[in-house]
Amino acid sequence: MGALVQPPGLEPLAPFAKGALMQQQISVITLGITDLARSRRFYQEGFGWRPVFENEQIVFYQMNGLLLGTFLKDALEADMNRRGLASPGAFSLAHNLVHKEEVEPLMERLLAAGGRLLRLADSPPHGGFRGYVADPGEHAWEIAWNPAWSIASDGHVTFGS
Amino acid sequence: MGALVQPPGLEPLAPFAKGALMQQQISVITLGITDLARSRRFYQEGFGWRPVFENEQIVFYQMNGLLLGTFLKDALEADMNRRGLASPGAFSLAHNLVHKEEVEPLMERLLAAGGRLLRLADSPPHGGFRGYVADPGEHAWEIAWNPAWSIASDGHVTFGS
Repeated sequence: MGALVQPPGLEPLAPFAKGALMQQQISVITLGITDLARSRRFYQEGFGWRPVFENEQIVFYQMNGLLLGTFLKDALEADMNRRGLASPGAFSLAHNLVHKEEVEPLMERLLAAGGRLLRLADSPPHGGFRGYVADPGEHAWEIAWNPAWSIASDGHVTFGS
Repeated sequence: MGALVQPPGLEPLAPFAKGALMQQQISVITLGITDLARSRRFYQEGFGWRPVFENEQIVFYQMNGLLLGTFLKDALEADMNRRGLASPGAFSLAHNLVHKEEVEPLMERLLAAGGRLLRLADSPPHGGFRGYVADPGEHAWEIAWNPAWSIASDGHVTFGS
């Protein structure tokens, strides 16, 4: 664990107030999309996920302790007060599987449901087995098996086994 | 819940094999960044989060059932087998707070830790209270209070209360 390198001139911030809630928590990942039907097909038929809410602008899926939202990009830009959101963005999402043998069949399902292959599954230097598929909005999903991380029966993923 | 609109010519996929594990699960969100020190300051001093792992390329934070990774963009592009990842990408992350009064102080902390204001906190048409701050890699964070969603003491967020 390296020491935090501070840019010159910046003072450390005051500590949080005693008792303040500061959860290591992400409540939602919202993906900007342009075609709700194509997106629904990828997530509902490719991954097999069921929405918890949908209207003409957004679909929410209840995930492992957080929500996944697929939201029309114009509406996301208006909410964020920022125009010109670009694709592909500098991020990826991952879905980890318990067994190595599940990686390629899921990638095949995602491709059949409108995904686009970015990288065939192989073994990275850091171990495990993974490939990448872009969703119909060009958002990258890593489909991975990583024996060094644990996956609980309720989907909660923990660093280390 | 609207019916799934299928693009013409696409057949529904075969159902998953009986007993197949298909968790509604995101294991990792990985953000592509160019400056690990600036990113660490934002997440560690702004949000107050502690890493579970770090090296010269990546920092992982254990979140509520998933990991957040901040990874050098060149390395993410190499792993994903895709060049030219753009910023700002068409997505946002959200961190929800239990109390409305916590939203603005956290936004102030994030700005002091190297974030950039995108939208001052206000009340959206769908209810609640939220603003947006970009991290030093231009990734958007919504800081929100939404009384319609529940946040457990372990950080797990559930649609509906």
